Amino acid sequence: MATPKIVVLGAGYAGLMTVVGLQKKLNYNEADVTLVNQNDYHYITTLLHEPAAGTQPADHARIAIRDIIDEKKVKFIQDQVTAIKLDQKEVHLANNEPLSYDYLVVGLGSAPETFGIRGLLENALFIRNINSVRMINQHIEYMFSKYHNEGQRQDLITIVVGGAGFTGIEFVGELIDRMPELCRKYDIPREKVRLINIEAAPTVLPGFDPELVDYAVKYFESNGVEFRLSTPIEECTEDGVILKGGEEIKAATVVWTGGVRGNKLVEESGLETMRGRVKVDEFLRAPGHPEVFVLGDSSLVFNKENDRPYPPTAQIATQQGQNCAKNLVAAIRGGQMEPFVFDLKGTVASLGRKEAIGIVGKSKLFGRKAAIMKRIIELRWLYLLGGIPMVLRKGRHLI
Amino acid sequence: MATPKIVVLGAGYAGLMTVVGLQKKLNYNEADVTLVNQNDYHYITTLLHEPAAGTQPADHARIAIRDIIDEKKVKFIQDQVTAIKLDQKEVHLANNEPLSYDYLVVGLGSAPETFGIRGLLENALFIRNINSVRMINQHIEYMFSKYHNEGQRQDLITIVVGGAGFTGIEFVGELIDRMPELCRKYDIPREKVRLINIEAAPTVLPGFDPELVDYAVKYFESNGVEFRLSTPIEECTEDGVILKGGEEIKAATVVWTGGVRGNKLVEESGLETMRGRVKVDEFLRAPGHPEVFVLGDSSLVFNKENDRPYPPTAQIATQQGQNCAKNLVAAIRGGQMEPFVFDLKGTVASLGRKEAIGIVGKSKLFGRKAAIMKRIIELRWLYLLGGIPMVLRKGRHLI
Repeated sequence: MATPKIVVLGAGYAGLMTVVGLQKKLNYNEADVTLVNQNDYHYITTLLHEPAAGTQPADHARIAIRDIIDEKKVKFIQDQVTAIKLDQKEVHLANNEPLSYDYLVVGLGSAPETFGIRGLLENALFIRNINSVRMINQHIEYMFSKYHNEGQRQDLITIVVGGAGFTGIEFVGELIDRMPELCRKYDIPREKVRLINIEAAPTVLPGFDPELVDYAVKYFESNGVEFRLSTPIEECTEDGVILKGGEEIKAATVVWTGGVRGNKLVEESGLETMRGRVKVDEFLRAPGHPEVFVLGDSSLVFNKENDRPYPPTAQIATQQGQNCAKNLVAAIRGGQMEPFVFDLKGTVASLGRKEAIGIVGKSKLFGRKAAIMKRIIELRWLYLLGGIPMVLRKGRHLI
Repeated sequence: MATPKIVVLGAGYAGLMTVVGLQKKLNYNEADVTLVNQNDYHYITTLLHEPAAGTQPADHARIAIRDIIDEKKVKFIQDQVTAIKLDQKEVHLANNEPLSYDYLVVGLGSAPETFGIRGLLENALFIRNINSVRMINQHIEYMFSKYHNEGQRQDLITIVVGGAGFTGIEFVGELIDRMPELCRKYDIPREKVRLINIEAAPTVLPGFDPELVDYAVKYFESNGVEFRLSTPIEECTEDGVILKGGEEIKAATVVWTGGVRGNKLVEESGLETMRGRVKVDEFLRAPGHPEVFVLGDSSLVFNKENDRPYPPTAQIATQQGQNCAKNLVAAIRGGQMEPFVFDLKGTVASLGRKEAIGIVGKSKLFGRKAAIMKRIIELRWLYLLGGIPMVLRKGRHLI
């Protein structure tokens, strides 16, 4: 009997947890495991708002894949996936021969959801990955550096953040921390800088605890952030944004955090998707394809309590990867698979280095306590990836 | 008899040396001395290539004027000069009442000389002042940060430096030092970056010692710099430069260092100028205006040995300021003025942190020795401005 071939696409939270689980549980030669990822590193999505604002170097938000995988058990291919051929059980790559599989794990992440806003893809910046956040930080600095060279134009030091969900709020919080240093560096009075957070919904962090939302809004407003709620953006131009009703805000920097959709490769594979996401079965498998597991931002898992899909988060992706590793081992060994059940441990949104809000278990947290909780969550991720050595190597700035 | 009013325009090398000389030599109330400068700091032009390349923070290349002047003896006005009215003996300012003077010292510096190259002012960057070099550094970083987001376009990591005179060479030397860190930061292989130095003359550093020029060229070429000599730039576009003959080099960053001319305010005052520079008399005074001293980049002083004008340098401006301070004191006290005689102490061009070439007295210097000499020259400038305390406060990174 041939050794079963497992191909894992994407080294995000879900893909890496799958691979780390497999290399722990499987014996040598029990399966051929191959991980495919575009970069030779994993990036920590939940920290990307920091390098985006320039408060931490980008290297703090990424980990070399070679430092995570056991190369005796997992083969790593750095390449871009160009197509998933479900019928042939093959994955096509940009620069390598096609890979055939017996089991496929799809953890290809997300793409920005623009909700049809004109000009967004062309003119806005997105907190997506290491490359994009390095560019956001440099974009902001470049605009600030132009200020005294180009007639002190207000738009150069106006930053619009579209979306007041988790990413938007965490990014604005980081910008607050960053401004004093940035203003000093470019001789710009802090009070001249405008930070504007625009959200179509009537509240910041829709669905989150109102008391904590109130805490965040007060903290932001006391630091000069302007909120525009119940205000959809109609168009993003080279000069800024045009709001519903026609008002224009001139801003040299527009960062869109308004939402994500699944990777288009999943749609193109022929699987049925909703906004690029596949409604998976209880074992996280694609309908009609028991050999294909779809995880993370590409998957749609429903909360049975309210029949609504769980929002795509690092937390759910991590648990999906852990579940998938177990179930792949069961499948190979002919054991019983376990249905996926999401265990929501809590939610913390950072508002900068020293401020955060969150719910852990049944407790509401805010301020310094919540900020420490946020870091504990990040340290836990490092621990899951590589135990104490990884925590020590990559987590020092979190402690 | 009314106290004579001395107005000094510009806190560059010449203006500051004048003011520092006056505040040393004059008694309290012997004259009303006013210094006018656009910024509340002096910038060290001979160090600007460092923050332009990002090898040193911009703050290393500037000194607060309040730390240099004795406010009991010198009044400082931070403002922009808008016009010099020679007939009324008045200086007009953007945000203050006009200043009347008995003696005027014009040290307003320079503007880029474009030699009629089309598109240069619109599309190139210039090593002019703190604002412009901060922008150059951020421009380069921004282009590098775009590289992996915009299809790895070669022009994003191609830097053209127009002009291989002192500023051009010192900037290219600094870029060599900067590249390893910058490439690491943005995951760009060093060998993909192009540094191209374009010069219309047939040699680098025209007029400089050929043996030292050869040393510099070899050092640069061994670090991947491409020279295009005897190659005038015909046009600078949004996409790069077009050379004489039609060849286009696509480059997202074009820095022009090809020369300077005098500040246009001097021309506009009605004084006769050549390329914005006034041919001054032996006491550095404007023809027909014995009460107006013109120093630094705005002045034209001829070398009697070859009847050619001395190039505008920090060294000559410094000596002019020292001479002017003495002569103003003599004028006020009814003493004898001293003609200005330039004493060329030497010339050193840095090629980065650890490399330089230079002639001091009759000795040729290169490599580490020359690099140390360059720093000694910078330390001497700090010493002239504020003695040992200034050397200790601002010169630490030079030692």
